[in-house]
Amino acid sequence: MLYFSCDYLEGCHPRILEALQATNLEQTVGYGEDPHCAHAAALIREAFAVPEAAVHFLVGGTQANLTVIASLLAPYEGVLCAHTGHIGVHETGAVEATGHKVLPLPATAGKITGSQVREAVRLQADFEHTVRPGMVYVSMSTELGTVYTCEELSDLYAACRDCGLPLYVDGARLACALASPDTDLTPETFASLCDVFTVGGTKNGALFGEAVVFRRPDMVPRFRYMIKRQGGMLAKGRLLGIQFEALMADGLYFALGRKAVEQALRIRAALTERGIPLAIDSSTNQQFAILTDEQRETLARDFVLEFWEEAGPGRSVMRACTSWATPDEAVDCLCKAIRDL
Amino acid sequence: MLYFSCDYLEGCHPRILEALQATNLEQTVGYGEDPHCAHAAALIREAFAVPEAAVHFLVGGTQANLTVIASLLAPYEGVLCAHTGHIGVHETGAVEATGHKVLPLPATAGKITGSQVREAVRLQADFEHTVRPGMVYVSMSTELGTVYTCEELSDLYAACRDCGLPLYVDGARLACALASPDTDLTPETFASLCDVFTVGGTKNGALFGEAVVFRRPDMVPRFRYMIKRQGGMLAKGRLLGIQFEALMADGLYFALGRKAVEQALRIRAALTERGIPLAIDSSTNQQFAILTDEQRETLARDFVLEFWEEAGPGRSVMRACTSWATPDEAVDCLCKAIRDL
Amino acid sequence: MLYFSCDYLEGCHPRILEALQATNLEQTVGYGEDPHCAHAAALIREAFAVPEAAVHFLVGGTQANLTVIASLLAPYEGVLCAHTGHIGVHETGAVEATGHKVLPLPATAGKITGSQVREAVRLQADFEHTVRPGMVYVSMSTELGTVYTCEELSDLYAACRDCGLPLYVDGARLACALASPDTDLTPETFASLCDVFTVGGTKNGALFGEAVVFRRPDMVPRFRYMIKRQGGMLAKGRLLGIQFEALMADGLYFALGRKAVEQALRIRAALTERGIPLAIDSSTNQQFAILTDEQRETLARDFVLEFWEEAGPGRSVMRACTSWATPDEAVDCLCKAIRDL
Amino acid sequence: MLYFSCDYLEGCHPRILEALQATNLEQTVGYGEDPHCAHAAALIREAFAVPEAAVHFLVGGTQANLTVIASLLAPYEGVLCAHTGHIGVHETGAVEATGHKVLPLPATAGKITGSQVREAVRLQADFEHTVRPGMVYVSMSTELGTVYTCEELSDLYAACRDCGLPLYVDGARLACALASPDTDLTPETFASLCDVFTVGGTKNGALFGEAVVFRRPDMVPRFRYMIKRQGGMLAKGRLLGIQFEALMADGLYFALGRKAVEQALRIRAALTERGIPLAIDSSTNQQFAILTDEQRETLARDFVLEFWEEAGPGRSVMRACTSWATPDEAVDCLCKAIRDL
Repeated sequence: MLYFSCDYLEGCHPRILEALQATNLEQTVGYGEDPHCAHAAALIREAFAVPEAAVHFLVGGTQANLTVIASLLAPYEGVLCAHTGHIGVHETGAVEATGHKVLPLPATAGKITGSQVREAVRLQADFEHTVRPGMVYVSMSTELGTVYTCEELSDLYAACRDCGLPLYVDGARLACALASPDTDLTPETFASLCDVFTVGGTKNGALFGEAVVFRRPDMVPRFRYMIKRQGGMLAKGRLLGIQFEALMADGLYFALGRKAVEQALRIRAALTERGIPLAIDSSTNQQFAILTDEQRETLARDFVLEFWEEAGPGRSVMRACTSWATPDEAVDCLCKAIRDL
Repeated sequence: MLYFSCDYLEGCHPRILEALQATNLEQTVGYGEDPHCAHAAALIREAFAVPEAAVHFLVGGTQANLTVIASLLAPYEGVLCAHTGHIGVHETGAVEATGHKVLPLPATAGKITGSQVREAVRLQADFEHTVRPGMVYVSMSTELGTVYTCEELSDLYAACRDCGLPLYVDGARLACALASPDTDLTPETFASLCDVFTVGGTKNGALFGEAVVFRRPDMVPRFRYMIKRQGGMLAKGRLLGIQFEALMADGLYFALGRKAVEQALRIRAALTERGIPLAIDSSTNQQFAILTDEQRETLARDFVLEFWEEAGPGRSVMRACTSWATPDEAVDCLCKAIRDL
Repeated sequence: MLYFSCDYLEGCHPRILEALQATNLEQTVGYGEDPHCAHAAALIREAFAVPEAAVHFLVGGTQANLTVIASLLAPYEGVLCAHTGHIGVHETGAVEATGHKVLPLPATAGKITGSQVREAVRLQADFEHTVRPGMVYVSMSTELGTVYTCEELSDLYAACRDCGLPLYVDGARLACALASPDTDLTPETFASLCDVFTVGGTKNGALFGEAVVFRRPDMVPRFRYMIKRQGGMLAKGRLLGIQFEALMADGLYFALGRKAVEQALRIRAALTERGIPLAIDSSTNQQFAILTDEQRETLARDFVLEFWEEAGPGRSVMRACTSWATPDEAVDCLCKAIRDL
Repeated sequence: MLYFSCDYLEGCHPRILEALQATNLEQTVGYGEDPHCAHAAALIREAFAVPEAAVHFLVGGTQANLTVIASLLAPYEGVLCAHTGHIGVHETGAVEATGHKVLPLPATAGKITGSQVREAVRLQADFEHTVRPGMVYVSMSTELGTVYTCEELSDLYAACRDCGLPLYVDGARLACALASPDTDLTPETFASLCDVFTVGGTKNGALFGEAVVFRRPDMVPRFRYMIKRQGGMLAKGRLLGIQFEALMADGLYFALGRKAVEQALRIRAALTERGIPLAIDSSTNQQFAILTDEQRETLARDFVLEFWEEAGPGRSVMRACTSWATPDEAVDCLCKAIRDL
């Protein structure tokens, strides 16, 4: 059975295991104050051209999201996001558990616009009976595999600045997003168009780990207190530093994203060739095919895709994910099976 | 420089790295629902003779504590613990962040008694203007390196049952505790004298990881929701399963604890031999020496100990920690240096 | 200037002031454990035919809502409600402040159905990455002035019971709801078709006060702890008891609701007669007229209505509220002004 | 039976009932934005010589405390207070429910000092594994009836300013405190020696109500959002304004405090005369007598005092409270009974 059900099926890139092996008996201080974390932070600042940024390493994505959001909001504020945003849908109320409301905006293909933000602020500003919008959350790539272009992100960020709202980008799949043919954003331009972002490791080569990058170091002066309070401080914090050192060296991080996207685009090509409709026009590592029940059953003999949602009688949206670790042969097999449907 | 400042200075036991290597490209489902986690859970149930237990794996200790506590308490309830307990002192209000008060009891050498629990309940039962005691938290070994005997834990657990309070034992240093010459508790008797406990991996051979063991599986039926809500669900959950599989195989977990305690007792012997007073009578892997400023400075040339607290003019309590990874030669060097003071 | 902007513009019904005067120097115990509260609770149990019910008195509606909801939900659970529901829209995240997500369902005229509840549960049951629906909240009358019929509430309550979800009805405007010509519910049938409800005093004759009624007393055994924890316990709790004693005597509570509705229906008749469209078909004390800018300005010379929302270019939905205290002459004036538009 | 068990046994001062009567059918906007609240705020600013202050009115003391504290603290911060402080002992974890730890300091006669604050900050500054002290809470008068002198409060406030911590004074019994012969503080000097304080109405003539006074209006710019979020916004907010208008007119507020203290000092004189030891040297409206079981039983025939705590075998500390409403004759009776013991 070949799995395309998500992008965290395997362990980590071999270079990371090598680095863990090589450093295993080093003695370092704990909690992320070791030289590996410092070095990894420097590499991230360089890769994204944010020389002043404060960089913190957390274990997981939900943890990163809730800790950043709870750090940026006043108690009576909420976070604007796409109605399909991960924080509002698939985090079991982790944001609400910190006392904040998620304020969904109707998204188009997983994305929101500057004018939506302006309108939400216009309607809710200075009315103390409703939650005050206090920040904006978007994902890059989105939960639907789509990406923001430079123009789109510029428009959104301009709205955020005009409204005084920090813009936070969840980069759990950032490497794939930046590898998409549908965006002209680079690491540098991307980083200049938001206030905080994460560099996702879990889905792009690491065993685990998300780097949180605050472009301005004074934005959340005591973020480490928040990490600890929310239960996210890793005792052997260096494990995160070692992994991101390996990922950020020689552009590995971005190369892994390109690899994952290439594999996905091969699957997309096969689907299109076969005439199978796509539920969403995704150019990253998640592809959403609308399959008939028969097609779904046929593929299920050899492949594990993820059921996404119903698409009318006898049809389902099925998600196929790739990652840096998806073997060429597995993609070949899936493409062949699709063409044979 | 040789470090004795804490018990999580190094990476992990070689067998764990080997296991991670061997399984690296396996494809498994995420979030801890993979075969490795299932197998590791079975090994834990066997080792502690809790055949019905529900076992969950979390990344860190604070995370495990806050998730267990928030799962067991009603909103208006608090958790009784030693005034030196980790949850009340060194977790940056993580329990309070879930809405619950920590109710400290004055501890003797880090331990509390059944009669203290009974008295606390007597004073606060059925008075709705104070927080209701809803559970009891202790650490084994304690934050001061001490351990509960079978009689002591039996007494405490009897009080908890009489008062209807679940007893939760934080086993971040459980392996060292069970290796202590000062306790007659075994894994089996220990597990039979509480309702929930953790099996600490971070400080005993793992890269990270704490197993949460509910003796009765129906105690918290939807604990996985709580893990996710609190940001503690690891995407590649198998990493925890793989590590605990390795630790629980062939009694490695307990052997590592014994090794750490042996090293610590050698340090204690050197301190005693040299006539240096001990702040606490610890028989586990943390030793607390009262040093003069001169002694402290002398040792600081070659060794990193942890400052614990002031002990009057010109004196400090300094903590020396060992672990499974502390080399014999490092302990030899420290013992020699102590004798030469 | 005559105000129709909300239904809490005045103080209280004269009988309540008389009762406060008559009891002013009585000495009673505090916190709602006095004879007046006990008597008022008995009168409520009688009026709604819920002989076993636990009755608690709180000061305000948001307070009542958040305290009930936080009492009924497990930490990882949320509350299903209409997307127009007060708790999701106009309480500044008070529910989220207790750690719970509000789960909006698309409402029709402010109401939701049993099948919506069943579908929400079907989609989110047993999937630990999303918030679990843990209860259902509706308002009677709704925020749009509409009411549930006996059939509608029966359908909803059947769904709740089948799904194991408590049904909570916010009765801030319960008296008006039960006076509506559009419902066949009586106090008794209403109370039998939900698990918890409030009897709103603030908008129906009291200075302040909402009675929370749990049909089964064991539903939230320590609700008083929750009231205190959430800051809602009134020191001189008898003030609530005294007010509800007066309201529930001789059917005053229901009579005041009927009076308010009569006044509103006179306004509705005037609007209809004049050919002014209604935004919502409300039969209670809130009427929603779609006015042109010119009409709005004309009325604004003598009357204060509440702007509700935009209704296309040059048009607005304006809300006119009545209450037990709205004088006949004021309604006469408004009706005449409407007819003269 | 004559009650001395607490200071909120009766309703309100007659002038308040008159004011409620006189304004009952006025129509005003809700939520505290009416002219009565504005006027009452102006009177408070004048009485305490804080011309710039922001004044808000809340219903109860626990509500005021939790809302102020949750407004002033960052999520990872806690509130320093006396170990006997109301927020740590008798509010059912209301502060913890907002996510913050209460950090008790060992108090002497209910009071803490500047040096205690400095020491707490010294020990916990910049150590992200412990809760950061973020503000200081004291009560005036304290829970034990004692008061701060000008020198004591100056010392405490200087420490707070040096440490960057706002000082918040819970004035639930402020009128009695300022009437104490043991303090030289006046309303003006008192208000100049803290950052936020409450003016307690509930225990000093009002039906309910606490005014929250922020000396600098920009301290918590959106406090009204916090009031609403925490469930503390009163729909008919004018009820608070009307009551404080009456209380602050002609110095009534302070006169009522003086009356209560006079009554209490008569009781103290009787106790002293009879040779009954006082548990605490209180000069305000709470007196704490150490009674033998026999004395306690004798008094219990005609008087209700409050059991405070055990005082060794056969002895109890019993609290006698007075208020503005305590009749002279009741005090006469109690004094006579004490002398006859």
